Amino acid sequence: MHKQLETYLTDTKQLVEDALRKAIPADWRIPGRLREAAEYSLHAGGKRLRPVFVLAAAESVSGSAKAAERAMPFAVAVEMVHTYSLIHDDLPAMDNDDFRRGRPTNHKVFGEALAILAGDGLLTHAFYAASRAADLGVPPERTLAVLAELAMYAGLPGMVGGQTEDMQGEQGITTLDQLESIHLHKTADLISFSLRAGGHAAEASDDELAALGLFGRNVGLAFQIQDDILDLTGDEAKLGKPVKSDEKQAKVTYPYLIGLEESRLRVARLTEEAKEAVSGLAAPSRLIAIADYMMSRDH
Amino acid sequence: MHKQLETYLTDTKQLVEDALRKAIPADWRIPGRLREAAEYSLHAGGKRLRPVFVLAAAESVSGSAKAAERAMPFAVAVEMVHTYSLIHDDLPAMDNDDFRRGRPTNHKVFGEALAILAGDGLLTHAFYAASRAADLGVPPERTLAVLAELAMYAGLPGMVGGQTEDMQGEQGITTLDQLESIHLHKTADLISFSLRAGGHAAEASDDELAALGLFGRNVGLAFQIQDDILDLTGDEAKLGKPVKSDEKQAKVTYPYLIGLEESRLRVARLTEEAKEAVSGLAAPSRLIAIADYMMSRDH
Repeated sequence: MHKQLETYLTDTKQLVEDALRKAIPADWRIPGRLREAAEYSLHAGGKRLRPVFVLAAAESVSGSAKAAERAMPFAVAVEMVHTYSLIHDDLPAMDNDDFRRGRPTNHKVFGEALAILAGDGLLTHAFYAASRAADLGVPPERTLAVLAELAMYAGLPGMVGGQTEDMQGEQGITTLDQLESIHLHKTADLISFSLRAGGHAAEASDDELAALGLFGRNVGLAFQIQDDILDLTGDEAKLGKPVKSDEKQAKVTYPYLIGLEESRLRVARLTEEAKEAVSGLAAPSRLIAIADYMMSRDH
Repeated sequence: MHKQLETYLTDTKQLVEDALRKAIPADWRIPGRLREAAEYSLHAGGKRLRPVFVLAAAESVSGSAKAAERAMPFAVAVEMVHTYSLIHDDLPAMDNDDFRRGRPTNHKVFGEALAILAGDGLLTHAFYAASRAADLGVPPERTLAVLAELAMYAGLPGMVGGQTEDMQGEQGITTLDQLESIHLHKTADLISFSLRAGGHAAEASDDELAALGLFGRNVGLAFQIQDDILDLTGDEAKLGKPVKSDEKQAKVTYPYLIGLEESRLRVARLTEEAKEAVSGLAAPSRLIAIADYMMSRDH
């Protein structure tokens, strides 16, 4: 990775971690175990990719770091939504996973009831967290638009719909359209939202928002295909998880449906289209660098 | 019940039912079973008490039905949040209930995974639904304030926190303070929100909002105590559910902790305080009539 991008990602991730630590007010009366359960998953690390996209998108439209500061509440919100979705997806009734990022999953530590409630609480709190953008100078109409978009992209026609398709798909996906629809909704929608939310913080025009949304869609889809490829060809040590798990679970993936070479071509094409989409923004270089990095990542 | 109030409640409930039927846009692409699961619970009837409070509160501040029209998106939102909470509370990992309002619970019909997802989807969509108030003329700052309050009253320090206390309390509530805290957060918070949301739609002052919030808190708490009383003394035919279920489940209730007579006194006192709180509003008569009706209800 380019040194400058590496520094940016490290620094931005740190800013996001700091904001996440303050996101659930310390003086709010919340049952102790509920707060613990919510924070256990919220502070479990990870790439913080979605928040980084929020902040980078704000900067790409305005060309200034000021807009990224105002966008932080949206960055916090999207990470909360992502975290809730992981907690609920891991539940016994869903994917029934015991480990995530090398640690026991939320319900393994806190029990199913608290895991459901912690997820519900984080999802709900995301809207509170996002609403704080108005205190940092994002116009109320823009802040409201972001909350409405969060509800759409994360909700019934978005991420929740995608997770539903994924659960149902376990009974047999056969076409690329089905697989793409799952990834679009389960993953790409929340990434599109992240980009658009950053744009709103920088008071982007409709055209700019559409460009950011398209960037998010394509990068989100490429990210999923890349995950499938790494599961087949990656290095366990770098990935920090066992490879070939998809094969073992008989999961239908891009390489399974269209082959490894065509999957790689698709990642490259989606990445090019993403970069092209944002090329007209005031300061697209950061987004372009992230897209290139994501395409060539090995973990 | 007074004839005029009865007509109001019937008519208003019908308006809410109509709005709920349109609340999830028909042309949104949502997986069929997910939509079915969400609508199964959303259209299951019930008193629609919270939406009625939203609309009545708007009218009490402005004295006009116009404000109530603008408040409908908040009414829809609060019923969605209430519905999601019922779906998740009924889950096997939570209260493990097989029936609600005489019908099989959501997870009994659709399975646990879909019930979790339908709940998540309804919770998320509530914020979208509420955001639509801005299209009806509620100022964006007000609409945004309502969304932020929904996230607080329904979230970690509110309803989700209350449900957590309730789950934990099954290991032994011993004091009235514990019981009151559960009811305040599990039930009264969302009712307080309903009243304040209606107030915001009518552009209420901070004092008016505080009065409405206090009304909601007291009526919400009285409602729970009345539920406990009716479970002991009510008529199964009128209630539509078996009585004395609390005793059978060894549930700690107000009558159990402080006796039936003191519980009745408490309902009366909370109701009086609620009515007193809103007496200075422009048109409080509807709210006062509802409070009186709720205190004397037999189902």
